Amino acid sequence: MALIVQKFGGTSVGSVERIQEIAKKIKRFRSEGHDIVVVVSAMSGETNRLLGLANEMQQQPKPEELDVILSTGEQVTIALLSMALENLGCAARSYTGWQIAIRTDSHHNKARIQEIDTDAMRKDLAEGRVVVAAGFQGIDDHGRITTLGRGGSDTTAVALAAALTADECQIYTDVDGVYTTDPRVVEGARRLEKITFEEMLEMASLGSKVLQIRSVEFAGKYNVTLRVLHSFQDGPGTLITLEEPNQMEQPVVSGIAFNRDEAKLTIKGVPDIPGVASRILGPVSRANIEVDMIVQNVSADQTTDFTFTVHRNDYQRALEIVGQTCKDLDAREFDGDNKIAKVSIVGVGMRSHAGVATKMFEALAAEGINIQIISTSEIKVSVVIQEKYLELAVRTLHSTFELDQGQSVKAE
Amino acid sequence: MALIVQKFGGTSVGSVERIQEIAKKIKRFRSEGHDIVVVVSAMSGETNRLLGLANEMQQQPKPEELDVILSTGEQVTIALLSMALENLGCAARSYTGWQIAIRTDSHHNKARIQEIDTDAMRKDLAEGRVVVAAGFQGIDDHGRITTLGRGGSDTTAVALAAALTADECQIYTDVDGVYTTDPRVVEGARRLEKITFEEMLEMASLGSKVLQIRSVEFAGKYNVTLRVLHSFQDGPGTLITLEEPNQMEQPVVSGIAFNRDEAKLTIKGVPDIPGVASRILGPVSRANIEVDMIVQNVSADQTTDFTFTVHRNDYQRALEIVGQTCKDLDAREFDGDNKIAKVSIVGVGMRSHAGVATKMFEALAAEGINIQIISTSEIKVSVVIQEKYLELAVRTLHSTFELDQGQSVKAE
Repeated sequence: MALIVQKFGGTSVGSVERIQEIAKKIKRFRSEGHDIVVVVSAMSGETNRLLGLANEMQQQPKPEELDVILSTGEQVTIALLSMALENLGCAARSYTGWQIAIRTDSHHNKARIQEIDTDAMRKDLAEGRVVVAAGFQGIDDHGRITTLGRGGSDTTAVALAAALTADECQIYTDVDGVYTTDPRVVEGARRLEKITFEEMLEMASLGSKVLQIRSVEFAGKYNVTLRVLHSFQDGPGTLITLEEPNQMEQPVVSGIAFNRDEAKLTIKGVPDIPGVASRILGPVSRANIEVDMIVQNVSADQTTDFTFTVHRNDYQRALEIVGQTCKDLDAREFDGDNKIAKVSIVGVGMRSHAGVATKMFEALAAEGINIQIISTSEIKVSVVIQEKYLELAVRTLHSTFELDQGQSVKAE
Repeated sequence: MALIVQKFGGTSVGSVERIQEIAKKIKRFRSEGHDIVVVVSAMSGETNRLLGLANEMQQQPKPEELDVILSTGEQVTIALLSMALENLGCAARSYTGWQIAIRTDSHHNKARIQEIDTDAMRKDLAEGRVVVAAGFQGIDDHGRITTLGRGGSDTTAVALAAALTADECQIYTDVDGVYTTDPRVVEGARRLEKITFEEMLEMASLGSKVLQIRSVEFAGKYNVTLRVLHSFQDGPGTLITLEEPNQMEQPVVSGIAFNRDEAKLTIKGVPDIPGVASRILGPVSRANIEVDMIVQNVSADQTTDFTFTVHRNDYQRALEIVGQTCKDLDAREFDGDNKIAKVSIVGVGMRSHAGVATKMFEALAAEGINIQIISTSEIKVSVVIQEKYLELAVRTLHSTFELDQGQSVKAE
């Protein structure tokens, strides 16, 4: 018998019928003797409907009042799911964020959880009830409703699991787990049995949209065992845990992430003096443009080339800013390219294996794919290439690092 | 400068545009220096939408969870109205029932208000903010959301006015006041400047749907001055207050109420023994049929005729029950009629004026209208007549008791 926190997102609770399906699944866990806390999002489309109303009223809705409106979405779902559970003879009680209470700071629309009272929930669990909690919302010190920002329900689930020291936090989604790469690009993409928090963070930030980054960080910080599962298909999903030390079987590379939403900008012949990076990136961030990769090469003639990538939507604005900076810094020239893509290999095994990056570069070279930028972290190597080579690169690397399904059988 | 509680119902806040109109009206009151607490209902249609979702999930939605769902309706409105006020430069803050807090008993779906904390609202008012409160909802001792039943927003408004000792509680509706009778029936129907709580109660229970009976009772009990006004038209509306003693000008009859939703049932030749009334009405109320008028005449031969009225929708069921009771009691015969209507004259002036009932009966007789049942209270006389005479009866009585608009001018 375990204490399990389960989170179901908007599409999983998108209709009365789906909520009934979810209730059946929860009941099965109850019959196995587990204590269950369920965290739910608003029914799919509801948050956008409410946001639409608010935007119709105010171009920039007052954050405090927007939270009052948005929080009603989950409030409807918790009551409906509790009813569905009771229909199945499964005792349940709904909790809004303030009822629990999930205490947050006062940053409306993007509040951070500070403290969670678990007394009431523990009492319900002890008395055999399923606790049905509203995700995404909390209450601040002034008694006002707060929300945690998009994807906040994942964060709520992980936070409740941490506060209740749950055995597992299960995130139900529309995929049956985390894959070695996008199955739409590589046919042989394989569901991972396990992945570490760090790898998941690198995969998530590189374009896998299974889990909110913030909830994975949170889970890592409080050592909450996460599992990603499919809402309507049975299966073990993917377990996301701490890295197990001395694990012999640790694969070198766990997955291939990629992202085609990037554009790169380069300033060439920049005087190589202190403070040049901030003088280039300062105007960019002041324009609220997020910068992803940053690469700087020092050359011999006391000038340097400076390259960074931004989201493709911000490309034109970034190009104008860089043009001005180029003049201001008396740099030689600038250019940009929005037909690029980023491909990354991710794996904690890299820490203990040399030559992983080299193997990656060789594999790409063998396919005639030119590497424009390289950026590395402890458990990841990212390269920027021409966009047209993206699929080829991903397939090549997936196979090079032996991630293909049934590869060991095929490789005679 | 006064403290005014204003209540706007569902159609008054039925769209973003209407909420903006309401906000302008509130701002005008603020500019005149008044402190304003606004109570709002869910946007029209929203409560039914939410109820529909709940009913789709559970035939008899669990009352506790139904309240969780229903209360979101007002929660959306308070935020939208607060935004609209802020748009006009009018500082405002929204309050759900639990945020105020409006403490109720635990009778979910029909909770009764027990206590209201006014500290937070008073602080907002002192700091120049409009308080925007969700009607219809509260919180019980277990921290669960409760609702007050249909029309509960009127009750919330009156309760807040009582708790804050407001100068006036204004109920905005789709009519510009309380009329001497339905203007659709009598062209000369006149808006009343004033009416007493007791008269309003008799008018409301007899078919005028301007105010919820419960809120009028509540207002009378706590001596809250009520005013009924039109949401989108300017005008003084109708003031509902305590009866002023020794008021010479008190009209004898204030209004003519009527109701065509009734049906009557009669058992004739019932043995006139103790307990006969309960033996006739007991089976009816056990079938959850509400009885309105009850009349019993004693005749000489030790039997009696017993007549009562029910809602027309319950007529067939009531007739079957009465048929059985007739046999059980060994009564002579039974019959019924669902083509009847009830007409009542209402007025506190009756207390001090004799002959009012006689004047009513004579006026009806002069038009050849036969009276089937008579029932009286201290400030009301009701008669049941054939339905086809309803409009004629109402017009006749309206004119007989000099309620017609400009009647004094006409009567030369």
